[in-house]
This record gives sequence, C-alpha cells and structure tokens, in this order.
Amino acid sequence: MGHTFERLKTLRQLLKATRADALIVPRADEYLGEYLPEHNERLLWMTGFTGSAGVAILTAKAAAIFVDGRYTVQVRSEVCAEHFEYHSLVDEPHAQWLAQILPEGARVMCDPRLHSFNWYRSTSATLEAEGIELVADPANLIDRCWHDRPAPRVEQALLLAECYTGASSYDKRQQIASSIAEQKADAALIFAPDTVSWLLNVRGTDIPCLPVLQAFAILEADGRMTVVTELARIPEGFAQHVGQGVEARPPGEAEAILSGFSGKTLLADPDTANAWTQLTLERAGATLLASPDPVLIPKACKNAVEVNGAREAHKRDAVSLVQFLAWLDDEVAGGNAHDEASLADQLYAFRQGNEAFHGSSFDTISAAGSNAAMCHYNHLNAVPAPLPMDSLYLVDSGAQYLEGTTDVTRTVAIGDPGEDACRMFTLVLKGHIALDQACFPVGTTGTQLDALARQFLWQQGFDYDHGTGHGVGAFLSVHEGPQRISKAWNSTALAPGMIVSNEPGYYRDGAFGIRCENLLVVIERADISDERSMLGFDALTLAPFDQRLLQRSLLTDSECQWLNNYHQRVRETIGPLLSGADLGWLEAATEPLD
Amino acid sequence: MGHTFERLKTLRQLLKATRADALIVPRADEYLGEYLPEHNERLLWMTGFTGSAGVAILTAKAAAIFVDGRYTVQVRSEVCAEHFEYHSLVDEPHAQWLAQILPEGARVMCDPRLHSFNWYRSTSATLEAEGIELVADPANLIDRCWHDRPAPRVEQALLLAECYTGASSYDKRQQIASSIAEQKADAALIFAPDTVSWLLNVRGTDIPCLPVLQAFAILEADGRMTVVTELARIPEGFAQHVGQGVEARPPGEAEAILSGFSGKTLLADPDTANAWTQLTLERAGATLLASPDPVLIPKACKNAVEVNGAREAHKRDAVSLVQFLAWLDDEVAGGNAHDEASLADQLYAFRQGNEAFHGSSFDTISAAGSNAAMCHYNHLNAVPAPLPMDSLYLVDSGAQYLEGTTDVTRTVAIGDPGEDACRMFTLVLKGHIALDQACFPVGTTGTQLDALARQFLWQQGFDYDHGTGHGVGAFLSVHEGPQRISKAWNSTALAPGMIVSNEPGYYRDGAFGIRCENLLVVIERADISDERSMLGFDALTLAPFDQRLLQRSLLTDSECQWLNNYHQRVRETIGPLLSGADLGWLEAATEPLD
Repeated sequence: MGHTFERLKTLRQLLKATRADALIVPRADEYLGEYLPEHNERLLWMTGFTGSAGVAILTAKAAAIFVDGRYTVQVRSEVCAEHFEYHSLVDEPHAQWLAQILPEGARVMCDPRLHSFNWYRSTSATLEAEGIELVADPANLIDRCWHDRPAPRVEQALLLAECYTGASSYDKRQQIASSIAEQKADAALIFAPDTVSWLLNVRGTDIPCLPVLQAFAILEADGRMTVVTELARIPEGFAQHVGQGVEARPPGEAEAILSGFSGKTLLADPDTANAWTQLTLERAGATLLASPDPVLIPKACKNAVEVNGAREAHKRDAVSLVQFLAWLDDEVAGGNAHDEASLADQLYAFRQGNEAFHGSSFDTISAAGSNAAMCHYNHLNAVPAPLPMDSLYLVDSGAQYLEGTTDVTRTVAIGDPGEDACRMFTLVLKGHIALDQACFPVGTTGTQLDALARQFLWQQGFDYDHGTGHGVGAFLSVHEGPQRISKAWNSTALAPGMIVSNEPGYYRDGAFGIRCENLLVVIERADISDERSMLGFDALTLAPFDQRLLQRSLLTDSECQWLNNYHQRVRETIGPLLSGADLGWLEAATEPLD
Repeated sequence: MGHTFERLKTLRQLLKATRADALIVPRADEYLGEYLPEHNERLLWMTGFTGSAGVAILTAKAAAIFVDGRYTVQVRSEVCAEHFEYHSLVDEPHAQWLAQILPEGARVMCDPRLHSFNWYRSTSATLEAEGIELVADPANLIDRCWHDRPAPRVEQALLLAECYTGASSYDKRQQIASSIAEQKADAALIFAPDTVSWLLNVRGTDIPCLPVLQAFAILEADGRMTVVTELARIPEGFAQHVGQGVEARPPGEAEAILSGFSGKTLLADPDTANAWTQLTLERAGATLLASPDPVLIPKACKNAVEVNGAREAHKRDAVSLVQFLAWLDDEVAGGNAHDEASLADQLYAFRQGNEAFHGSSFDTISAAGSNAAMCHYNHLNAVPAPLPMDSLYLVDSGAQYLEGTTDVTRTVAIGDPGEDACRMFTLVLKGHIALDQACFPVGTTGTQLDALARQFLWQQGFDYDHGTGHGVGAFLSVHEGPQRISKAWNSTALAPGMIVSNEPGYYRDGAFGIRCENLLVVIERADISDERSMLGFDALTLAPFDQRLLQRSLLTDSECQWLNNYHQRVRETIGPLLSGADLGWLEAATEPLD
C-alpha cells in the first residue's frame, strides 16, 4: 500500500511536469497480446492488480481501475480502495468517465504502443467531443519512474525445422505476399508475434507458455520482409533458415523503417495492431488499408505436417495425463489428500520427461471441490486447497511440444461426489459428444455450432458462462484466432486443419465445477455426401473421461457408442505406450459401457 | 418488348432533358417494404421483371438489371437481353458498375423516397470518389412518363378493438414516447407502415396480404403523433379510437411537417427509413440520431391478448387446413389429379368461411412434385402442374384474421413417394422437433438456435438454403422483424411473446421439396430451473404432420413421444370443431406411433 502511495505521487508529479491532466495505463505491451513479460506489467506495478485485463486512470485528484466481470471480486482484494475507485470496463467506458471528470481543454496522456489504433481513434473522438485532447506519447510515464523494473528477457529464438512446419518460411512468405499483391497493397503490417513466428518458422523462449519471437514485421508484396526485434534474439543460421529476403532490425530503428514506407499502401489491422505503428505510418505519408492480418487464416488452417505433429504431441501428452490420472486414483485410494499445487506439479513432472517438451501452454488450473466452480481459478493466488473426499477434481492443463500445442481438461471423481454431480457431468459430456460428432457444411462458423454443446444443459435449465471452443496454434499460442465457438458472433468459417477446443462445462457456486475438454481438428467429410461439401471434427486429445461420473440412463445408445469408440481408440493408441499398473488403469478406465 | 423499347426511349429523352447521365430504379416504394401496390411497380413497368427484389440502371447508351441468386433464371425469361445486361445484385454492386461506365462529372438521378438513407449515403460516397454526383430528386422520371399508371388504392382503414390489441393506442404511444425521452430525443421517425398501424391500432386494406395503413409518422417525446397518409384512409371514429394527441395529415404536407422539426433531435433508422425524410429533416436543421425504430421490440413481443388471439386464429386456420388435407386425400384416392392452382383455390375456399378472415397472409405456395424443389415457386408464373401420383405435394399458406396472422407448411404423400423422400421428410421433421423443444437462456438469439433444426440433415450431408424461422406479426406482416432464426447473424434476443416460424426443409433438384412449418410463440420456462431464466417455444399451429412419410426407425423414442403429444393436442383442440369424415380423417392422421 505504501508502494502504491509513493508510486501514484511520483506519477502525479510527472503528469504535472508534462502539463497533462490524466494518464491511461492499460494491461498491455506493444504487442497487445494476452501474455505479458514481467518487465511490461505496468498496470500491476501501478495498482497491484494481477488480472489479465484492466485499465487504470490517474488524474491529479482521482484514480480509478476498470476491470471486467471476471475480476470484480479479485480487484477488491488486490487494489487498495483508499487509492482507486473500482469501475466496470464494460458498463462504464473509461473514455466517458474521463470526459465527465475532466474540464474542457484538459490533456490526457496515453502510450500509443499499448493501445490498438481503433481504441485510439474512438477514445480520441469521444474526448475531443468534450474539448479534451488525447496525447499519444510513447515516452511512457511509468517507465520513467519504475526504477527497479526487471530487465527484458532476450533469449535466442529456436529455428523450427520443416519436419515440424510442413512449409518453408520462404514459401509461406511468397504465398502471403501474393495475397497482399492481390489486395493491391505494397506491403502488410504483420503485427502479432505469433504470426511473425509462424511466417519465419521460428519460436521464441522469452515468455512462459507462449513460444513466440517478440517481434513485428512488414511483409512486402514482392516477398521481402523486415522483422523488428532485439537482434540478440536472432540465432546463428537464421538467414539460411528463413531464406533470402528477410532483414532483422532492432526496435530502435522501428520509426525509421516505418517512415520508409512513405507514399506506399499498407494493409494493417486497426483492431489488433498498435496505434503507434499506424500513426507513424500515417505521419510518414503511407496509406493504410484496414484489413485483417493476411497470415491469420493460413496460420489457423494447419497443413498435413502440422496436423500430424499435433497428433504425435497429443499422444505423448495423453500418456502423461493417463499416468497422472492413474497415480491420482492410487493416491486417493491410499488416503493421500494432495493439495492443488502438488497435483499440478506432479502432472508437470509426468509431462516434463516427454520428447520435444517445451513447457506448459498455460498455467494449469488444478481445482479441488468448490474451487473448481470459479472458471478462472488459480491455486497460486491463495493457499492451495487439499483434495476433499467425495468431491470432483478439475484439471485443465496443456503443454508445448515442437510438434504442437495441447490443452485438455478432465474432471475426476474423488470418492463418491454424489448423484447430482454425476447428472451434471453427464449433461456436460452429452454436449461435448454432440459437438464432437457435428457435421456441417463448408461456410459454417463456430457461433452456429455453439448451441449443440449447450443444448442438454439448457434443456434442464443450466448453462455455462464461457465460450465452448477457442482456436489453438501449432507450437504457438494456446488461444489462437480467428475461429472460435461461442455465443458471441464470430464470422470466421471453420475450415479444414483448424484446431479448436471443445470444452463445455458446468459450475455450481460453492459446490463443484465440471469441464470436459478435448482439442479437435476440422476435417473434410467427403464420405457422407455427394450433395454438399461437408466438414466435421476429429479429436486430437486421447484421454479417458471418468466413467464413474456417468449416469448411463441419461446417455442415448448412440452417445454410449461414441464414448465406447472414443475409449477404444484411446486404449489402442495410448495402451502400447504404457505398461504395468498404468496400462491396467487405462484398460479399466476405457472399459466399454453397455 | 415493343413497350420496353418505347419506354426506355422516353426515359432517355427525359434523362437528357434533365441533363442527367443515368437513372437508378429499384423495386421499392416510399415505404421500402416487401409488398408493393400495383401503381408503385416502377421496375416492372420499366423492365418486365416480376421478382421481389432488383434494381435497373439506365444510361444514354446502356441499361442493366441487377438481381440476386433467387432470380438469375427468372430475369432471363422476363427481361429482354436486347435491352438489358444482367448483373448480380450481390457480386457486382451497382454503384461500382456505374462508377466504371460513367465519366467524371456525370450526374446520376435517384428518387430518395425509394432508397434507405444508408444506401443513399454509401452510394453517394462511392460515386463521389469517382467525381460523379448522385442527384436525389423525388420528381421521379418514371412517374412522368408512365401514362397509364393505375390509380393508388385508397381504402378506409379498420379500427382494431382492444379485445384484439390488448392495449390502447394511447397507452402504446405513451410507452414508446417515454423510451424516446429516455434516449434524450425530442421525437422519433416511425417509418414502417406496420409499426404505425400497430401504434394506432388500425389496419389497412389497400394491399393484398399486408393489412397496413400506408403511412409514416412522427411520435414526439410527449406522446403527440403526426401521421402522414391519404386522409381518405382515415375512417369515422378514428379520433376517438386513437385518443388525444394524434393528427392525420396528407402526404402533400409531409415536407412542411418534417421541416417543422428544425432544431429538434429525432431518432431515425437509416437502414429502414427512406433517404428523402431524413434528407428533408437534415436540411431543415434537425439532428438525426441513428437508432432502430423504438416500436420494433414492443410490437414483436406480443401481449397476452395478442398471443391468445393468435391461438384462436390458429385453431380456426387449422380446422380449414385439416378440411383441405382430408379433402385432398379423398380426391387422390378417387384418382382426381387436381392442379396446383385448383388446390390453392380449394384451400382458400375452406379458409374464406372463417370468422374474422381477412384474406391470405401471402401468395400460397402450392407445389406438386419437382416444382416444390424451387423454394420460391409460384404456380401463377406458369401453367399450374397437376399432382403426379407417387410424389410429394408441398403447400405453404397462411391467412390474416382480426386476431392474428397464420403461416403453415405441410408436405403430403400423394400415393407412395418412395423411401428416399420418406427418409428426407423424417430428417426435416427431426430438426423441426429439436427446435420446437429447445430451451435456452434469456439473451439467446435465433442464430444460436438455427443449427438445432439443421443438425440431422447436416449429419447426412444435406442442408437447405433458406432461414429456419422469421418473425410474424399480429394481424400484420407475415414477415416481421427484428428477430429471426437463420445462419446469418441476428443480434435480437428471442423474448417472451415473440412469434417465429419453425420451417426446416429439404429440396432435391428436379425431384421433390419438403418443408415442415409451424408458428411458435416464445414462452417463459420458469418450470425447468431455479438457476437461470429460461425460455422455450409453444406451437401455435395445430395440424397433423403426414405420418405416412415417417421412417419410424430414424426417430428416437423422445421424438416419437413429441409427435404423439403434438398430435394428441391437435386432436383434442381441433377435433371438437370437426365432424363426420373430416373428424375421422383427423383421428386417423393423429393416431399415436408406437
């Protein structure tokens, strides 16, 4: 708390010195991604808030923090009410809040590297309507007073061989370059680190869970590419790996590089690329065409090598998960009540030994009993709870392998969790099965399929407040767009090679949480019809669902058949990779139902 | 053809006389609705095209007609290729086509009454970018040379009693007025004739199928309303019926009325209200706030009286449909091969005798055999086909009653249509049942439910290329927004009292067509859960589905139970209103399946 007081005092002095009336601090860095390296946790430094999304605003007299519904409880425990007002990021847009408290003629500072171009334009317009100026200044005030700021991690990137990527960087760049030329542009701003990494067939090692090269790039219509990143990240052999036409330049030259596109026409996505790059291009006299990143769809639609890699990664990952689940049953039977942290560590230990393992793909959710009712529970935020008997245990985890990214959730019976928990588990699994089995015509989007996973819960008056499925990268981000399966409208049609999660759930406050998650790959289903081009899913994840939690009478015969077929496939694929007690456990766990 | 040549020649002379280079003629009148009275069929007069959507463009040397995918065949048979090029309304935006063929400095005429404000603005911007001026002139060139133009029908409107509407016009206006005040506006442009009719509790009789008063209105935040319509339409007792604060004024005064809102702020929907009203308001110095018509949602959510009225109307309508289906079976058994027209006439005759009957709610689709494979088939466009034996007959029809609007489709076996037709019928009916049975949380939109009706067809590689459900009015338009159940995104949440159709189908080119359509009303389902506010559907339509077309083995027991329950309800509700052979037919048709 003392920290916060001092920090706000210093920031207010700096505000005054720059003749500004307010400062906007989002949880973001210049790449606008989901994961932040420690040295860019400016919002955390200023407020103490550890959530994944939020904005703080400081004026001479007031300070406020804006968070969404996921964090209304957490913000109150982490951010001192003495210093900050709490507001809703959704219901009380911060630009309007500012417009209400500031006088005409006021100046509001923002760092244009930390906001999208569209945010900058709309906030600027809202404030301007009240006679307030939004000043875009990349000389970040927090950076000027954060004296013990950690040094950025700058590790050498990995060069990912074609046996993993299925296509050379050169060929990928030629393909994207021709799509840029087709759109009558001279170049495209390739902004997201994961799209840059995919295009170059490199992976970074700076950030936990997210193996991206921290970089942005400009790809020209003739295939030449300029990559802006710390040069120390570029490993030996890079030039040969990526082929001709790629130049790496340090961030200090970014402005000069962008200014070199004076008079040119560039594709840029105003929703995902930061305001600073686009303001710099505009100032230099470049013409911007608002357009989604041209790499998004080619990256989302995995090629045959990437899909096969994902299958291999999932086999290895399933072996570890089965070992963990067998071990867990044994420990529970032995009366050993492990806590959530030691369970997560044990699962990590099983995975760690795998070939081509490169860490977790996200922080494991290891949630015992009623903790699992909180969708975004993290046992590291409090004292990890021990497993209570006669309850459910939910474990949502994943790993990065050179061949692909995994993400799997299983819900496990700890003793006898009772009839109600079993009924809810069965309804969730019915939804999982319905989505897994779905066939749909080419052109169908995830929004159109979302209700298939919810229908059985809905029928009984239940639902879950998160999406049903997100895209997943190939040894890249575990949350990858543009496809998505959710209630909110998503216009991206599912296409062959896209990987999505299938994760319906159910959460009963103070009681238990359930989620059944596999990753699926979209496949062509030419087998079922001559009349329409149909698509379907094939499960990548290969781990048993806990049959002790099933109410057989709620399953149709066809659902039961699906489960038996899936378990048979798990047994036949993973069984040969196991032995002894683990194999025995798998055989019991995949025993067919009648 | 000679007609067209003369007409185009005259129009080109007029273009030249007004120093204009092109003329845009859409299929629309000043209300921008789906139904056009005969005297406003300007596109038909100019081109011969009878479809429901299209645009023609005339220049000194060229002429083109733009239609969508439904009409690519029809336009070639109706519009002479000697005079018109054919273009796609979707793939080749007509503004861009114009921009390509006209020189800089050219002037393009449009009648701003026949286009939405958003169309006007975007077309204007597209042309302006090429140095071409879009001239908005309500002195329509076609009206100036259409010498034998029919006189407009101007019939007195009906005053609809509160026993049908469930609320007085005065109360409705007060409710909408306060929502206008909440939005900090002085008034709202109430543009669509059906919303004006709903607000005044009046119905028009000028247009076949669509019982609206042809009028637009301005409702002020204090509840006063100015209605612009031919005064001859206003019946005796109108003032007393609508209560104080309503003034009817003739169309000739429209400009003066709009200009009277100088300095005021008005809500107006730029997508549905015509450009002329909004340009006139802007010129007068009014401020326009883009906003959906505030009447849309209150009108869509039927009150208890309207829902009960709809139930009564549907009972009467079902009696007629059952009489028709019984008669049809008898005729087929007797070897009488009626043609599509005489079947439609017979169905109309049964309905005509009903209490409170006010005509059809749309042109009946009476389609025999392979004609039913064309979704938008109209037997009046060609020689009506006789019913072939061993085929399917599809009849999609509806009526207007004082209490409500009906719309129902049944597909009937004529002899033995074969196994394949029965399999497809069963898949369609399974989708119909799934949507009928759906429960869903408050906030769910039709797009989210659409796949429930398609899933069984998809599973076998089939689909249908139309929406699954449209909204329906209360003795108003049979196609009413804003809710809709379709693949295309619709953001309107389904809410209690909304009426929607449930009409999955299947169409095999050159072979047969199937559609199973009931109207449903959205109801609260407080019975199923304490945890979430859930909604569901209740069927309004009460007519048997043809069980001769079912493949029982494709139905689950629960689907079979649904069908038996529905048929029991039909028998119990409609049976007492029938006698003799008709009752016998109903009992046989609703016999429970095992």
